[in-house]
Amino acid sequence: MSLDVAATKPHERMQAALADDLAAVGVLIRDRMASKHAPRIPEVTAHLVEAGGKRVRPMLTLAAARLCGYVGDAHQKLAATVEFIHTATLLHDDVVDESEKRRGRPTANLLWDNKSSILVGDYLFARAFQLMVETGNLQVLNILSNASAVIAEGEVLQLTTAMNLATTEDIYLQVIRGKTAALFEAACEVGGVIAGRPEDQVRALATYGDGLGIAFQMVDDLLDWGGNTGAIGKNTGDDFRERKLTLPVIRAVARADADERAFWVRTIEKGDQRDGDLDQALALLTAHGTLEETRIEALGWAARSRAALDILPDHPLRDMMGDLADYVVARLT
Amino acid sequence: MSLDVAATKPHERMQAALADDLAAVGVLIRDRMASKHAPRIPEVTAHLVEAGGKRVRPMLTLAAARLCGYVGDAHQKLAATVEFIHTATLLHDDVVDESEKRRGRPTANLLWDNKSSILVGDYLFARAFQLMVETGNLQVLNILSNASAVIAEGEVLQLTTAMNLATTEDIYLQVIRGKTAALFEAACEVGGVIAGRPEDQVRALATYGDGLGIAFQMVDDLLDWGGNTGAIGKNTGDDFRERKLTLPVIRAVARADADERAFWVRTIEKGDQRDGDLDQALALLTAHGTLEETRIEALGWAARSRAALDILPDHPLRDMMGDLADYVVARLT
Repeated sequence: MSLDVAATKPHERMQAALADDLAAVGVLIRDRMASKHAPRIPEVTAHLVEAGGKRVRPMLTLAAARLCGYVGDAHQKLAATVEFIHTATLLHDDVVDESEKRRGRPTANLLWDNKSSILVGDYLFARAFQLMVETGNLQVLNILSNASAVIAEGEVLQLTTAMNLATTEDIYLQVIRGKTAALFEAACEVGGVIAGRPEDQVRALATYGDGLGIAFQMVDDLLDWGGNTGAIGKNTGDDFRERKLTLPVIRAVARADADERAFWVRTIEKGDQRDGDLDQALALLTAHGTLEETRIEALGWAARSRAALDILPDHPLRDMMGDLADYVVARLT
Repeated sequence: MSLDVAATKPHERMQAALADDLAAVGVLIRDRMASKHAPRIPEVTAHLVEAGGKRVRPMLTLAAARLCGYVGDAHQKLAATVEFIHTATLLHDDVVDESEKRRGRPTANLLWDNKSSILVGDYLFARAFQLMVETGNLQVLNILSNASAVIAEGEVLQLTTAMNLATTEDIYLQVIRGKTAALFEAACEVGGVIAGRPEDQVRALATYGDGLGIAFQMVDDLLDWGGNTGAIGKNTGDDFRERKLTLPVIRAVARADADERAFWVRTIEKGDQRDGDLDQALALLTAHGTLEETRIEALGWAARSRAALDILPDHPLRDMMGDLADYVVARLT
């Protein structure tokens, strides 16, 4: 199966189908991240932008608009808006998390300083805002301003729930909606709005983005534990070390006996972590089956996401979007 | 003179004239800084909001709208927007400057942490954005999104010009426009726009706010040197210690002889500051007359600001705004 998946990565097919739009968005991004007065701004931004994320979020806006038959270029502005909001949050996240690597390169906060990351993030957020105002579409502005508030609220919520064993699945869902799904949702939704689609189709696009984002983030959280098979590697264990409560841990804590609970209190709540604790944590998640359960949850969100597309026009991009929902979970195996 | 000024502080008269509007803005601010999910957000915000700034910026929006005959409540939303943008920038500034006090109280970054200040600032910025979108006025959105970009750009510029003796008066003006004048300008301008005033009157309000903000910031920078009389007190010398180039220093550096230049290179560029250096710096500013010159510059901007109001309707609020322009410089003496 992994070979099949590799041969047909849906975001690569989308990239090919949207090549012209994406090139225009790339020009727009370079153009708008410039600053006449403060060269530090394009330096910091270029460092992150050129590290080359997959640009999934702007691609979703472009795909949603095109699949809805949109003709024009406002969708490119919205795609650049979405990428700027995303980049701004990455800059701030790396300061908050004291991260040293992003997309395989040293983070901006490490290369320059926290100050630059904070202020350049603010600049990109303001530029995002200018770009979307240029579309003159109030519904779009409403959606993206709401998403921005949900994103920031989710980040604060995550800050205050880390190290807290009382974190529930509901709170976890709010955190990952803020962290990931809100922007996926808005990115898709504005594509439908700018194309003038009826309300039910716009809602369907929002539901697709929400489910896709949730599935994506659940899988990301799972990969931090080595995936559903729990294979510890060099990219695993960060969340445990940072004492973040993700779904596999929340469920294992809920089912812990007295000894296990004492382990979680010591390692997560008190932060007293010793050699072998990561292995022990993983053994508990495996024993309670919560890694595999998280994969099943993610599959459910992906299926819901794909199903939402049914009422949208038949279009190759619609199929690729559906495949993308499957892929974000399939990349586990 | 200082007694006369104290008896008739124009912002206090404005506060009285706009009491109902200001109360409504206060309710709006408390309402919109709430967060269903993340109690940390209103905690941090309330700490700053309740410390009670003078709310000059929202007051300018209210005054501009009322003086232009506006009837409705959108100007209150815009006033709250302006205050949220201001509060967000204060939170981020205090992290960037590693400040420990703000409005006489410990800063949020000190009481909570930098993370909370960064993320709550982002939240307030998003909330500001939501509030202004609710007015449904695209011109207003355009003005405030542009102002947000100028503010962030100015902050980055300030970051990269600190410690740089090549900083020119032009760059200084850009920095203080970003730091202060851009939001003053936008605050006034949107009041006229929401009231549906013709373009020339809207421009006049913008010119008023720009001049007021520049005069205000120049005086603030002067007060950091003890005012035009250069009296060192407990609130002076921060900019020197942080190696910031404000107008009095820029001009003194421009006229420095070789010995003086060596002093500035050592203290500002290299950051090697010793006992007595602050006194020595102040002596140089006094010798070159740049403190008094800065006051004269500020007076010029204040006069320009006041004069711009001439084409606006005759109204008690117009007179108070004019008096405010004089007052921001008169508070020096």
